[in-house]
Amino acid sequence: MKALVYDGPREVVVKDVPDAKIEHPTDALVKITTTNICGSDLHMYEGRTDLDPGMVLGHENLGIVAEVGSAVVKLSPGDRVCVPFNIGCGFCRNCEEGLTAFCLTAHPDPKMAGAAYGFAGMGPFWGGQAEYLRVPFGDFNLLRLPEDAQEKEADYVMLSDIFPTGWHCTRLADMQPGDSVVVYGAGPVGLMAAYSAMIQGASKVMIVDRHPDRLRLAEQIGVIPIDDSKGDPVEQILEQTRGRRADKGCECVGYQAHDPQGHENSAMTMNRLVDSVRFTGHIGVVGIFLPQDPNAPDKLEQKGRIAFDMGKFWFKGQKVGTGQANVKHYNRQLRDLIHEGRAKPSWIVSHELPLDEAPSGYQHFDARDDGWTKVVLHP
Amino acid sequence: MKALVYDGPREVVVKDVPDAKIEHPTDALVKITTTNICGSDLHMYEGRTDLDPGMVLGHENLGIVAEVGSAVVKLSPGDRVCVPFNIGCGFCRNCEEGLTAFCLTAHPDPKMAGAAYGFAGMGPFWGGQAEYLRVPFGDFNLLRLPEDAQEKEADYVMLSDIFPTGWHCTRLADMQPGDSVVVYGAGPVGLMAAYSAMIQGASKVMIVDRHPDRLRLAEQIGVIPIDDSKGDPVEQILEQTRGRRADKGCECVGYQAHDPQGHENSAMTMNRLVDSVRFTGHIGVVGIFLPQDPNAPDKLEQKGRIAFDMGKFWFKGQKVGTGQANVKHYNRQLRDLIHEGRAKPSWIVSHELPLDEAPSGYQHFDARDDGWTKVVLHP
Amino acid sequence: MKALVYDGPREVVVKDVPDAKIEHPTDALVKITTTNICGSDLHMYEGRTDLDPGMVLGHENLGIVAEVGSAVVKLSPGDRVCVPFNIGCGFCRNCEEGLTAFCLTAHPDPKMAGAAYGFAGMGPFWGGQAEYLRVPFGDFNLLRLPEDAQEKEADYVMLSDIFPTGWHCTRLADMQPGDSVVVYGAGPVGLMAAYSAMIQGASKVMIVDRHPDRLRLAEQIGVIPIDDSKGDPVEQILEQTRGRRADKGCECVGYQAHDPQGHENSAMTMNRLVDSVRFTGHIGVVGIFLPQDPNAPDKLEQKGRIAFDMGKFWFKGQKVGTGQANVKHYNRQLRDLIHEGRAKPSWIVSHELPLDEAPSGYQHFDARDDGWTKVVLHP
Amino acid sequence: MKALVYDGPREVVVKDVPDAKIEHPTDALVKITTTNICGSDLHMYEGRTDLDPGMVLGHENLGIVAEVGSAVVKLSPGDRVCVPFNIGCGFCRNCEEGLTAFCLTAHPDPKMAGAAYGFAGMGPFWGGQAEYLRVPFGDFNLLRLPEDAQEKEADYVMLSDIFPTGWHCTRLADMQPGDSVVVYGAGPVGLMAAYSAMIQGASKVMIVDRHPDRLRLAEQIGVIPIDDSKGDPVEQILEQTRGRRADKGCECVGYQAHDPQGHENSAMTMNRLVDSVRFTGHIGVVGIFLPQDPNAPDKLEQKGRIAFDMGKFWFKGQKVGTGQANVKHYNRQLRDLIHEGRAKPSWIVSHELPLDEAPSGYQHFDARDDGWTKVVLHP
Repeated sequence: MKALVYDGPREVVVKDVPDAKIEHPTDALVKITTTNICGSDLHMYEGRTDLDPGMVLGHENLGIVAEVGSAVVKLSPGDRVCVPFNIGCGFCRNCEEGLTAFCLTAHPDPKMAGAAYGFAGMGPFWGGQAEYLRVPFGDFNLLRLPEDAQEKEADYVMLSDIFPTGWHCTRLADMQPGDSVVVYGAGPVGLMAAYSAMIQGASKVMIVDRHPDRLRLAEQIGVIPIDDSKGDPVEQILEQTRGRRADKGCECVGYQAHDPQGHENSAMTMNRLVDSVRFTGHIGVVGIFLPQDPNAPDKLEQKGRIAFDMGKFWFKGQKVGTGQANVKHYNRQLRDLIHEGRAKPSWIVSHELPLDEAPSGYQHFDARDDGWTKVVLHP
Repeated sequence: MKALVYDGPREVVVKDVPDAKIEHPTDALVKITTTNICGSDLHMYEGRTDLDPGMVLGHENLGIVAEVGSAVVKLSPGDRVCVPFNIGCGFCRNCEEGLTAFCLTAHPDPKMAGAAYGFAGMGPFWGGQAEYLRVPFGDFNLLRLPEDAQEKEADYVMLSDIFPTGWHCTRLADMQPGDSVVVYGAGPVGLMAAYSAMIQGASKVMIVDRHPDRLRLAEQIGVIPIDDSKGDPVEQILEQTRGRRADKGCECVGYQAHDPQGHENSAMTMNRLVDSVRFTGHIGVVGIFLPQDPNAPDKLEQKGRIAFDMGKFWFKGQKVGTGQANVKHYNRQLRDLIHEGRAKPSWIVSHELPLDEAPSGYQHFDARDDGWTKVVLHP
Repeated sequence: MKALVYDGPREVVVKDVPDAKIEHPTDALVKITTTNICGSDLHMYEGRTDLDPGMVLGHENLGIVAEVGSAVVKLSPGDRVCVPFNIGCGFCRNCEEGLTAFCLTAHPDPKMAGAAYGFAGMGPFWGGQAEYLRVPFGDFNLLRLPEDAQEKEADYVMLSDIFPTGWHCTRLADMQPGDSVVVYGAGPVGLMAAYSAMIQGASKVMIVDRHPDRLRLAEQIGVIPIDDSKGDPVEQILEQTRGRRADKGCECVGYQAHDPQGHENSAMTMNRLVDSVRFTGHIGVVGIFLPQDPNAPDKLEQKGRIAFDMGKFWFKGQKVGTGQANVKHYNRQLRDLIHEGRAKPSWIVSHELPLDEAPSGYQHFDARDDGWTKVVLHP
Repeated sequence: MKALVYDGPREVVVKDVPDAKIEHPTDALVKITTTNICGSDLHMYEGRTDLDPGMVLGHENLGIVAEVGSAVVKLSPGDRVCVPFNIGCGFCRNCEEGLTAFCLTAHPDPKMAGAAYGFAGMGPFWGGQAEYLRVPFGDFNLLRLPEDAQEKEADYVMLSDIFPTGWHCTRLADMQPGDSVVVYGAGPVGLMAAYSAMIQGASKVMIVDRHPDRLRLAEQIGVIPIDDSKGDPVEQILEQTRGRRADKGCECVGYQAHDPQGHENSAMTMNRLVDSVRFTGHIGVVGIFLPQDPNAPDKLEQKGRIAFDMGKFWFKGQKVGTGQANVKHYNRQLRDLIHEGRAKPSWIVSHELPLDEAPSGYQHFDARDDGWTKVVLHP
């Protein structure tokens, strides 16, 4: 089958690879019809992670069940399904508690928790930027889509990762209706966090970024754009909140945060969030931080550490919740919101490309070229 | 009246000061019968904070209502009461949500949240290591005690701070029945955190310290002592949990953490907790961290920062909750547990002294002299 | 001052009564500018309750602080405020837990929990369908309004009761984003429950009633009207939910439920809700039920009992939450939603009348005359 | 294999039946070593339900994995396991939310939610009062036991039903540490509810019954016995709580409640609980109520209805949660409590019998013969 393969830093290529197939009685095989490029694909694309060449990328996948293993009872060939980026078993302690991003079974290394498709450090599972995808524990992992699956395919595919991930960030921040919320980072995940806050009844949502195309997308859904290249974002948040600061904060940037002058500073958004959020406020963090980052410019960062404002954080009585989204914990409800016409996450899609043009999509998205906010591929 | 006054680093003196009195219609005046020396009094005693000489110390207070202001309706002279260390108004947004440690009214500086008696940075309110204490918003702040108030005075006085603070730590860590819990720090607050975990049905509670007297007290309530002077505590926790690490963790040490060799390292316990707690586990932090600490040995610490293992923390999907305890959120239930004979926090008391001997109590407690685990004063 | 006084069944009259005034240091006196007629005023108006003649009615009040007692610190004359219908003290166990509808201090009868203005069985407190209102525990009870208070007065007055009451119903039902919700009763409270569900991100909200004017108002905010005079509402809900029934249900009718033929049947809506909601679903009940109802047509009902489908309820593993709304638990956040333009509850107002015309307003509203959905009075 | 088979009202017989075997790739086959007689077996034994003769009874099962299907990955022959009484699939909406008592897959009737072994109305699955038991979805359903499995077999078997069911009742009642709790019914489930409340830190637990042997067992764990044959239990609860009533209540009796004179009254415990619990208190109901009960003496009860004190319940702002326990939601934590020596639920076992003597065990337990509190069978 054809698939997009990682060949080394900033080298991805579409080529023939062995067909994905059923390997265990609980597997399902999905013919991929839509698969996105994710911001976390860029960490791998840029060579910052330790991904070995040869991996098929792609963890935002949607398609049609092609074949099922002998133990599968819920699914039939022909079902349209969305694939959560995390692979869960459904019966370990974490999966049972809804913490499917930290499955204790799927990853071959027993010291690890969590597995994903086409993802550095998350197991050997090939991704879905390909014609077919093998899905372990099919009954547990696959989300069936209703009769408007094709018509709203660009919306439903967002259920694989970024819509639940943005939503997760608001839950980690314990956002409540009526709250004011500030989101740092207006990439696809940050935009989804802001959108999730709006859907859940935030009174005011602010988003901090400096790319005009992203800030414009935020404005389209009623979110207040804060351009941090035009002044201290904390000061701007103070103005927006009559000096009260935001009730809750969302970190959607991660370890590769840059200041407006282009210098990497992995502690910047966390410390700004502590400053932007009120006493007793909560902060959700879905931007990725790495346990080790040997290529980082800073010595602390190489060990996965940041110079964190612990004193201010403690004194303010704040809370922080972190980690990859447990997609399955949210995707049914978000599917229903899309189906009933109450959510339309596809508003951020800027480009739909055939799989063959994926390498060009990676290049533009990685360069943050103006207007390349979200790239969707159709194998 | 007689009171214990801070005169400068390691200088406290018992002397005559102007009488505490009713200043506002909602005030109550309490004749103090028992008042403790707290571990956080030592931060002030040692001169590490910016407390001005002349302050009356003491925020762990219990006594008898002597007089009430004209607006007070719940209390009458003669009522035996315990005084939460935080001063709340009862009607600001934070107090209404139970976040009385972050009252927006009581502290005279409108940018601050939270006030306390005899406490650096928490307002001008005199403490209760004295004959009398003025309690603002008396109806809201004072907890009435039942008919066994005198008999169990050494238990009920713990409701003013350390029992709720230890309990708060387990709630910040979202401890659930059946969980395994590790507590760093076996001072009075850490012992109360361990005790709180036991009362709430933890399956296994471990506590890390190196003072034999403290570890012995922990053992008395069924807690497993871990001596970090005898080996890496994380390794010992792995052994105790069959390699699973603890479900939840409690930080009861704070910014003045020392390694067994005596070097201060403010990041040590936080990073060890990230390591000691499993994927998706929660960590509660009631050990104090300061927004600025100009006298700290380390440059980061002077700015209130620590070199935090953010990458590992995020990768494990952990959560951290922090801050002073909202005493009123817990003190009724804990009072009822004491009254019904289900809790007896006074087991940690090592010394009961008259107020006049308080300076000697400070000296021994500050020196961590063997056996000086908790000092109770009787004015 | 002028006030609307209950004179007996279906007899209300506007007349001069003694001026409301400060009686305790914590009181505030409010000059009323807007006050609504509530559906629960009709229970009293109809003489179904044991209200004594002479009571000033009105528990949905908004106005300007005219005077404050000596202990009041938060409020100043001239502040525009909204008055929650429940009177809380702020320091009893229930108020501290946010259960201000069940205050243990305000009601003179120590066996009762909860007090309100101008309300049968809720204490001797006069209502606000008058020129002035005495508000006990002013600092605790009054909600300050922002600079758009006058401009949005018809929205902010809804914070006194029906908007928080409708919202409370969704919280009692534990409504989650993405849920389908059915509301029984499209009176003002039912409409607010439906509106609250929409704001919090329900995927689909259905409302059951038979009055065309009410169902039209529901449609205006995207809610699906279900006319129970045109067929079994449970069947209609099954159709709307592909046979799955609603995830959550709201009871906004109460003990005086009638079937479409006009017969009173106090068990009807509860049993229909059990049938309308899925296995494990939750039901919130803010429609009023009375502990005794001597004038009820049915013998069970006279004792405050209903013939409840306990077997089906238990078998389905459902939950029910009940009771008057703890207004203060919601009114800050709802105020912020109004202020930021994210909620506009005044869309249900049908009539604004001067106080003198209140008796006519009662008559039309009680008759459920077409188009009389919500009456607002201006003293 | 040998099994206990229901032959008709009060007729159970141990006889040879076809061997249980693997029927689906996800099945596991368990050799039963311990299996209990449950109070709900008695509803079937007495012929009150519509169970067809020929069913193998027994839903409280523990044993050793004998064989696994081809899709099973977690389990191996020889593993010692406890079997939850509910059969869940692990991937339907309810199982994913932890509501395994309401699985949407396992029961063959698509309108039903929930399946169980050897249980009227819960599907065709044979019970475990037999030599072998087929367990569908083995990886999901079976709980592995640690190295002390044999030594503590009488404790671990309680994880199959009554310990989690009692615990569930306290969770449905939202019991919090420090609460006072009243449990109606001191059968095995009621005793486990009381025990669960003690473990979770209740300040005072009261239990209402009239059988001296049961009340004695309650006293052994520090629970206050209330004998309702010696006076109104509500009055006794008022005395125990200084007139405050209990904070939370547990219903562990169900539809076959009898008054001390022996008359069945299915509404009695629910209405007494409403009366016994304070304003805003919660009530958990795990006693079984049936949607229809054609053989009931009362006309309302035949339709599954009770004459419920809705008015008082609403006026007090109480909440009720109901339904069978989601065993898997609790059994890991309770297993860990047993393993660490913090819980020992076997204290209620009165008789251990070989399977052949099961009919005699049914007879004595059904007769509530003195001292027959819990019967454990060993096939």
